[in-house]
Amino acid sequence: MAKITAIIDIGSNSARMAIFEKTSHFGFHLLYETKSKVRISESTYEHNGFLQEIPMQRAIDALQDFLWIAKLHKTRKIICVATSALRDAPNRNIFLQQARKIGLNVKVINGEKEAYFGAIAALNLLPYKEGITIDIGGGSTECALIQNHKIIDKISLNLGTIRLKELFFDKGDYKGARNFVLESLKSIPDHFKNARIFGIGGTARALSKAIQKQINYPLDTLHGFEYHFKDYHHFFKTIYTSPQEDLLHLNIKEDRLDSIQGGALIFHLALELFEAKTIVTSGVGVREGVFLSDLLRHHNQHFPNNFNPSVRNLKDRFIKNHQQSNITKKLALKLFRAQESLKLLNPNLKNHLSVAAELCNIGIALNFYEKNHHSNYILLNALNYALSHEDRLIIATLVRFNNKKIPEDLAYKNLLPPLDVLRILSFFVGLSEILSYNQQPELFTFIFLENENNILQIIHPNISYLIREKLKKLTPPKTIQIELC
Amino acid sequence: MAKITAIIDIGSNSARMAIFEKTSHFGFHLLYETKSKVRISESTYEHNGFLQEIPMQRAIDALQDFLWIAKLHKTRKIICVATSALRDAPNRNIFLQQARKIGLNVKVINGEKEAYFGAIAALNLLPYKEGITIDIGGGSTECALIQNHKIIDKISLNLGTIRLKELFFDKGDYKGARNFVLESLKSIPDHFKNARIFGIGGTARALSKAIQKQINYPLDTLHGFEYHFKDYHHFFKTIYTSPQEDLLHLNIKEDRLDSIQGGALIFHLALELFEAKTIVTSGVGVREGVFLSDLLRHHNQHFPNNFNPSVRNLKDRFIKNHQQSNITKKLALKLFRAQESLKLLNPNLKNHLSVAAELCNIGIALNFYEKNHHSNYILLNALNYALSHEDRLIIATLVRFNNKKIPEDLAYKNLLPPLDVLRILSFFVGLSEILSYNQQPELFTFIFLENENNILQIIHPNISYLIREKLKKLTPPKTIQIELC
Repeated sequence: MAKITAIIDIGSNSARMAIFEKTSHFGFHLLYETKSKVRISESTYEHNGFLQEIPMQRAIDALQDFLWIAKLHKTRKIICVATSALRDAPNRNIFLQQARKIGLNVKVINGEKEAYFGAIAALNLLPYKEGITIDIGGGSTECALIQNHKIIDKISLNLGTIRLKELFFDKGDYKGARNFVLESLKSIPDHFKNARIFGIGGTARALSKAIQKQINYPLDTLHGFEYHFKDYHHFFKTIYTSPQEDLLHLNIKEDRLDSIQGGALIFHLALELFEAKTIVTSGVGVREGVFLSDLLRHHNQHFPNNFNPSVRNLKDRFIKNHQQSNITKKLALKLFRAQESLKLLNPNLKNHLSVAAELCNIGIALNFYEKNHHSNYILLNALNYALSHEDRLIIATLVRFNNKKIPEDLAYKNLLPPLDVLRILSFFVGLSEILSYNQQPELFTFIFLENENNILQIIHPNISYLIREKLKKLTPPKTIQIELC
Repeated sequence: MAKITAIIDIGSNSARMAIFEKTSHFGFHLLYETKSKVRISESTYEHNGFLQEIPMQRAIDALQDFLWIAKLHKTRKIICVATSALRDAPNRNIFLQQARKIGLNVKVINGEKEAYFGAIAALNLLPYKEGITIDIGGGSTECALIQNHKIIDKISLNLGTIRLKELFFDKGDYKGARNFVLESLKSIPDHFKNARIFGIGGTARALSKAIQKQINYPLDTLHGFEYHFKDYHHFFKTIYTSPQEDLLHLNIKEDRLDSIQGGALIFHLALELFEAKTIVTSGVGVREGVFLSDLLRHHNQHFPNNFNPSVRNLKDRFIKNHQQSNITKKLALKLFRAQESLKLLNPNLKNHLSVAAELCNIGIALNFYEKNHHSNYILLNALNYALSHEDRLIIATLVRFNNKKIPEDLAYKNLLPPLDVLRILSFFVGLSEILSYNQQPELFTFIFLENENNILQIIHPNISYLIREKLKKLTPPKTIQIELC
């Protein structure tokens, strides 16, 4: 696969481009993203889907600029998909020809394929194995049912924000809109029921952003943000029943004002139908799905087990010394195994410890001094895929305090495991990091002696002078004493 | 020069190693640093300088560990220097032989050379052209007089923290220590007078750390921290006249307790002699000097004019798209030139604008979303060499708000230029970034029309659709209106 790939997605409301860089076999990250609100579907809903000349020209202009920017980023491969507006347009060939003239091959995908791409993105880049995706676009809405890490069913509805706006909201006909949505939702098969919903696309993002503002959410990141449906029924309803000018006070951004009402209405009614409980915000969607579908085409559309693309990508780019990073991780996992007989730690914390140990030195990339602080910042802000916000916070906290005591007044405390558990984990990270600098670190073994003080024996044929000196400065949690053997 | 170089420095108090990576011709950064408090000079001051067996063995053990860690970092070149303890030791050859046996060639440097290395580091990595360096070690103190970016004179005194501790402070003889220091300072030539002092080494760092705590200094970085000598006479005196156990309350760290009193005494008396006014903390010293001396050996020990090693290094490592970074910088400088007729900006802000424009997209390396936030964090924490803290703050603030209005309640406001000036600069950064994505960006020209509204004409044969769309979202400062021509 090409090192740098651009994915363009022509929606009814806006055209968007995302440029991804592969940093290793499966490691990748987003290099650039842009959108242009070309609204290619303008006036089509009142003209039997026929694309109009001015909107088409806007789209071509924007696409030409996208191609230039893709070139600027040394893009080797461009994949362009178009969704409902082009799908529905009897005259789409005119547009496709114009696109071909500027060198762009546009692939019009059907609704099921669109649902599929959204689901592939959610499946691989969110930390859950099941749920229902819902992606509300300008002209259509796609849903996919995921169970046991597999896409079970997909559906596409002719239900979109611009469609609702032009047919109903612009005329103040909220009731008409509601009936239209309810009628359309009837075609969703009965087995689309799940407590967990993955909210993809602009509507879900705009609602999550507004909710984060409302509750003063501590993290500045949308992907993976979760909330309970039951707490926001009233909020959703307020959005689609208020006059548009009131929406700014509800923390809806200016450029969403004209599409959020239809979006919130569809979202609310669909989620009731699904019997939703938890909503997981997805910062990824069709573009990421198209990219992953290409990246994983020989791998059953799925990352290998226990593979995390962000961890890999960060390691590829910011860790100079992979050998030491791997040793540190191995030592931390040995420590985890050693405590298993005493059951000091919940088994599901093993992965957090492993990632924290592997990436604990990542902050050196910014500045060796205060490196733990920088590691914390990087992991909090860049470890974005396939981890929940809690996961991220735990990992970032472990690297932050890997060589000192976690304070009582720790930030985000209520999102984290108990302090004594965190202290053991962060001690394991700090200890592993120190020991990784010893000669023959693979010879370290650890034994926990069961007694009041949980003596941890660190066994090695030759613990060096410097390492002994550094170990003296490391304070274990109160519940653990170390003994060098 | 080797890509990865380790510099080892055997001082009287501790042995230290710094590992540097070169990322381009002159760009470099610190990969790793460690120290071992081997105190090779232990008991030498009472044995006519003769090195004792146990301290020598400790040093050899630690050096062996250093070599292992250097290897772990794939170091290609190791330079090891030793200072006063070995300089003064009649039996130093025993130690040098032992070192050779473990594969380390130790170069004992004289006091003037030691002063020289400290000065080379200060000269190249702090943003000033003149001042006096003072580096207080365990066994000796080195000073260099810098004028007009040149080292004018150097001196080394047999005056060090461990020496004072063992000869006087351990016996509670503060008066004896004071007389010893005053006597020793007499050998400093009269022309060592300057208002600006560069404080190198552990004593200066420990004092600066304590002062930062006292005043709740907002930045978490020591290198480049400045304070006024007159405000801290009393503080320095308190340190060397208080019982050692009281020093923790003065924010002196545990591992400095036994050497800070002698250090503070020398520092205080020397600075009075120099007629010091401002103290600039140097986070760099002999090790960086040795490294730079090697790096710049064909360049007159000096970086080229207008070259900043941190800017270069960050660009080398974190900016994917150098072409776009260069275009953005050029556009920003064109804008700066365009306003010169109106004198909107102080000429010395040109460099801040240039660096901010060049590195404004650096945050993408961490996460494309909220990139300006990440750019701010990176520049605040990694742009460490040859810039004052004010410089750094200005640059970091410009990238933080490059596409939006700087708020009234800006952090660190009192360290920064007035808000209206910052707003113009950050607008220039944001504008340059947007325009850099246009085709043929080199064709942009800018003219400021002199009138009440300072109309800025942006002239280009073909401003593209997407760029026009993005420009609409950019709000210029109140004092500027833009006009596309």
